[in-house]
Amino acid sequence: MTLDYDILVIGGGHAGCEAASAAARMGSRTLLLTMNMTKLANMSCNPAVGGVAKGQIVREIDALGGRTARITDRTTLQFRMLNRSKGAAMWSPRAQCDKGRFSAEWRHELENTQNLYIWQDTAAELLFDTAGERPRVTGVRTCMGVEFTARAVILTAGTFLDGMMYCGEAHAPGGRAGDPASTGITASLAAMGFETGRMKTGTPARLDARTIDFEALEPQYGDENPSKFSFSTDTQQVKHQSPCFLVYTSPEVHATLRTGFDRSPLFNGTIHGIGPRYCPSIEDKLRTFADKEQHQLFLEPEGDNTNEYYLNGFSSSLPWEVQYEALHRIRGLEDVHIFRPGYAIEYDYFPPTQLRHTLETKLVDGLYFAGQVNGTTGYEEAAAQGLLAGINAHRKRVGESAIVLQRDEAYIGVLIDDLVTKGVDEPYRMFTSRAEYRILLRQDNADLRLTPLGHEIGLISEKDFANFERKKSCVESLISFARRTSVRAGEIDDYLKSVDSEPMKQGRKLYDILLRNEITFAGLSRVLPKLAQLIEEEGMTTEAIEEAEIQIKYNGYIQREKFIAEKLHRLENIAIPADFDYHSMQSLTIEARQKLTRIRPTTIGQASRIPGVSPADVNVLLVKFGR
Amino acid sequence: MTLDYDILVIGGGHAGCEAASAAARMGSRTLLLTMNMTKLANMSCNPAVGGVAKGQIVREIDALGGRTARITDRTTLQFRMLNRSKGAAMWSPRAQCDKGRFSAEWRHELENTQNLYIWQDTAAELLFDTAGERPRVTGVRTCMGVEFTARAVILTAGTFLDGMMYCGEAHAPGGRAGDPASTGITASLAAMGFETGRMKTGTPARLDARTIDFEALEPQYGDENPSKFSFSTDTQQVKHQSPCFLVYTSPEVHATLRTGFDRSPLFNGTIHGIGPRYCPSIEDKLRTFADKEQHQLFLEPEGDNTNEYYLNGFSSSLPWEVQYEALHRIRGLEDVHIFRPGYAIEYDYFPPTQLRHTLETKLVDGLYFAGQVNGTTGYEEAAAQGLLAGINAHRKRVGESAIVLQRDEAYIGVLIDDLVTKGVDEPYRMFTSRAEYRILLRQDNADLRLTPLGHEIGLISEKDFANFERKKSCVESLISFARRTSVRAGEIDDYLKSVDSEPMKQGRKLYDILLRNEITFAGLSRVLPKLAQLIEEEGMTTEAIEEAEIQIKYNGYIQREKFIAEKLHRLENIAIPADFDYHSMQSLTIEARQKLTRIRPTTIGQASRIPGVSPADVNVLLVKFGR
Repeated sequence: MTLDYDILVIGGGHAGCEAASAAARMGSRTLLLTMNMTKLANMSCNPAVGGVAKGQIVREIDALGGRTARITDRTTLQFRMLNRSKGAAMWSPRAQCDKGRFSAEWRHELENTQNLYIWQDTAAELLFDTAGERPRVTGVRTCMGVEFTARAVILTAGTFLDGMMYCGEAHAPGGRAGDPASTGITASLAAMGFETGRMKTGTPARLDARTIDFEALEPQYGDENPSKFSFSTDTQQVKHQSPCFLVYTSPEVHATLRTGFDRSPLFNGTIHGIGPRYCPSIEDKLRTFADKEQHQLFLEPEGDNTNEYYLNGFSSSLPWEVQYEALHRIRGLEDVHIFRPGYAIEYDYFPPTQLRHTLETKLVDGLYFAGQVNGTTGYEEAAAQGLLAGINAHRKRVGESAIVLQRDEAYIGVLIDDLVTKGVDEPYRMFTSRAEYRILLRQDNADLRLTPLGHEIGLISEKDFANFERKKSCVESLISFARRTSVRAGEIDDYLKSVDSEPMKQGRKLYDILLRNEITFAGLSRVLPKLAQLIEEEGMTTEAIEEAEIQIKYNGYIQREKFIAEKLHRLENIAIPADFDYHSMQSLTIEARQKLTRIRPTTIGQASRIPGVSPADVNVLLVKFGR
Repeated sequence: MTLDYDILVIGGGHAGCEAASAAARMGSRTLLLTMNMTKLANMSCNPAVGGVAKGQIVREIDALGGRTARITDRTTLQFRMLNRSKGAAMWSPRAQCDKGRFSAEWRHELENTQNLYIWQDTAAELLFDTAGERPRVTGVRTCMGVEFTARAVILTAGTFLDGMMYCGEAHAPGGRAGDPASTGITASLAAMGFETGRMKTGTPARLDARTIDFEALEPQYGDENPSKFSFSTDTQQVKHQSPCFLVYTSPEVHATLRTGFDRSPLFNGTIHGIGPRYCPSIEDKLRTFADKEQHQLFLEPEGDNTNEYYLNGFSSSLPWEVQYEALHRIRGLEDVHIFRPGYAIEYDYFPPTQLRHTLETKLVDGLYFAGQVNGTTGYEEAAAQGLLAGINAHRKRVGESAIVLQRDEAYIGVLIDDLVTKGVDEPYRMFTSRAEYRILLRQDNADLRLTPLGHEIGLISEKDFANFERKKSCVESLISFARRTSVRAGEIDDYLKSVDSEPMKQGRKLYDILLRNEITFAGLSRVLPKLAQLIEEEGMTTEAIEEAEIQIKYNGYIQREKFIAEKLHRLENIAIPADFDYHSMQSLTIEARQKLTRIRPTTIGQASRIPGVSPADVNVLLVKFGR
């Protein structure tokens, strides 16, 4: 006997939860297969969501109708808008979350999603139909012998495939501290011709608050007027915020850590997988910045009902006693009890150049990959991939066109395009620098960029869409008011003086005055009754007013990036046939022929981003395929 | 480097949590080693605490200062006093609990217990000092290479040692669905000469409430005036209760189940371990009661924020599809989605005749066993053993006398004496029938029996002890009032009539009137202003009043049991030297010599309960050691 579903999601982490939620809400009968129903969307590493570029991704997930932002808002312990002092493109929301409640809220969400069914067991084998022209995934068999069939399978196995945990010279199989590894899936895929590799990540020690001298540490508080992640009115700003704490290493701490370097699995060759460059272990940091006398660490609460604290920045796979002794040399942690030491974990991944932009594999029809199995790192990156995989698996099943976000539309577009085009040679993490159009891809306008699409594909409710349209019309109304309203010289001098802005020598449009950095709609509304009346009458939210302001102030940059994006879009619109024989083109370099054959870009735009394909190669392709 | 603690507890289940909590609160620096801090005191099977005899144990745990009752009260979804219609000795409290909150509350409790430290890792090896005359446990080494030393180690590994899960022909190693098995400890112990064996237990499928037709089921509600488990005023009665539901199998369901019997690991010899007789799988029930046309099952909620339901009575290791098809033939479950099928688990245990009454092993100094590793089943039995092991490990360390509860003092005394004296040949579960003195061992008087001891050993707070003394004095005061107060003929006829009690023909003591079943202090207080005044003035609680009533009504039985107990106590007071050579006593049967040598009873009382030691053998021993 087999049980049949439309879509199967293997893995209940951040990718799997978004994938299953999206597919089910769009109308596919979806089964989420998870090892452990009590650890859905478990935050295996730090208790936080967002941050630079990652925060933008979460806003995009929300704008498309994903659930990560809502769950974050419901479990926030502290909210900060990072980079507030920089330009709006750099503003990045970040929240500390209650780890246990985050998981519980996701479980509640999934348990109550229509069309979505959860099954607790471990996937042991993927099933394929190889009779046709192209192999097709047909389902999965579990350790307990259950066979599920489906039109599509989304694999989101995180760090669990053949996971091996390391702490100094000790190692043990596992998918995460306390959880078993998963075996069988990699072999299933290798048998179908998939290339596999090993990657590595790590996590720091967890500390017992009762044994921390908080008086010796520097607290770091959340924003005074915290914002939130979700655009929906279904969630509220956090009310009571918990502090984090700054902690510093010292030369003494470093000296202690160095005593373990010869037994470090990272340094002595035990671990082959490559770790995340931008989330390095403390031992990596000591090697890379050998002359730095201290490193800053963050002590983050894991929940509001636990004494467990996470020591961000101290990830390590040094022998436990080295970690332990080093910790005890840190000011404030002299008597610390740890709940467990840090460790590294090595796991299987599948080079993501084996994927299409839809996250479907090129080799097997109906099989999608999302999250760490694609060589990425981060809850946000995983959730984004899960969401898109869920969307595309559903749409393909019902015969609708694929959803592929462009690089000027979303960080999610950049993420997926980077993965499938450039591949990864270390765990991929999002940065603003990866985006060509980061002035377009702001956290504030994620809804303007993506919510119409989210609504069109059925993931944004009518209520949320009405709210969105209201916000959009407020923004337009404010900008139009600013364009048509003039202010006489002297009329608002008192206000200008109060914000250290030069007095006006002649009358000007409000729009032009707003180009000054220090001028805000909120300030102006105090001296311009008509503006105040407009804001009042249309019931404009802070978000809408801020959005209008950003659009005015950054308009020059925005227009320029839009222009460049449109120009480059032309390359994205020139298609290359899927089965084109690059080796027949003598004018391409040999490297380009090889890379193009391996990646099989769908457009010249994508071809141009493949490492090893030169501008000259692109010109050759343009001559061949361009109009 | 090693980390040193006074006492190490291996395992964070019901036994481990009570053990660690007790040892720490008594003053030992205690480390609780658990695989998974998010699953402390996890209810691996049904979401309920208590029941017949088990409820009494929980009351005893509470009376001694353990924590299970408090945690239960804080997470109760439904409370019922079972057997209310029978005699007071049979009254047994039982609560449905919120599984997730039960575990979270325990974690909160333990995280905030002074002297108690938690460490997340898996024990891989026990360490011993074999240099002295007797081997001594010195600590444990974990999978991550951490070495802990201690004066005592309490092993509470549950079903995790070399656990193997079975579902039809499929099987997979694991300690519980979703959790890895633990290997290494059994080998450590076997190397020290411990006898080991395999036992088996099982659990039913979990159901999705959204797919259950509750209209077709019969609800079962909690008590109208629910009581609670803890004697402490720190917890309150449950306010909002959830119903359970009665479900019935049918000949059709049975026929479906039978189609899987040839693939049942229980029936085809795959599983060697013996399962719990009184908690049989549904396939066991079909075999044992082949002509029964239906079995009653209970559908129990797993929490108040989840759709997960537990199907009590449907435990199974039949192939999943057989379970699935049978479930779909049950009225109300025709369309049910399951979160997972039932499965059986086989695991290592250590015959408990290798233990002293303190739960310390006879072979290794400082090593204690508690819970399922001793061949028991049930959260309550495990918690009780953990509590006593924690108490005794601490007391031995500080040079205080052992705490051994007698069979007429507590079900816990019966439990431990049965284990160490009789051993087990199947998972041991407590029943009232196992106790000789069940009229003495009531749930209502567990505090009177044990709280002075709990206070003396430092586990009952001054506040709780003051409450206890107040209750005790109220009981005495009420009984004394009843003894000295007379009622004239006719004085309370209206009341008597209202409860269908015969009118009094002559004046009588209140005490004698109360011997009538239908007469209560509460009722009497409505017609006897002096009684009402006494209750009012002393602020007597319902519990105190009920206690006085029970003591009066059952006084005859109580006195008789006390008399028998005291007579038998004489045998308990006749010690047998630890190293006595039974083989030198030709007058003992050979079987008795062998059994006595193996068990090494400490008293003639204990010797008399060893299976295979006859009354004649006891007489021989009495001649030898009696005065």
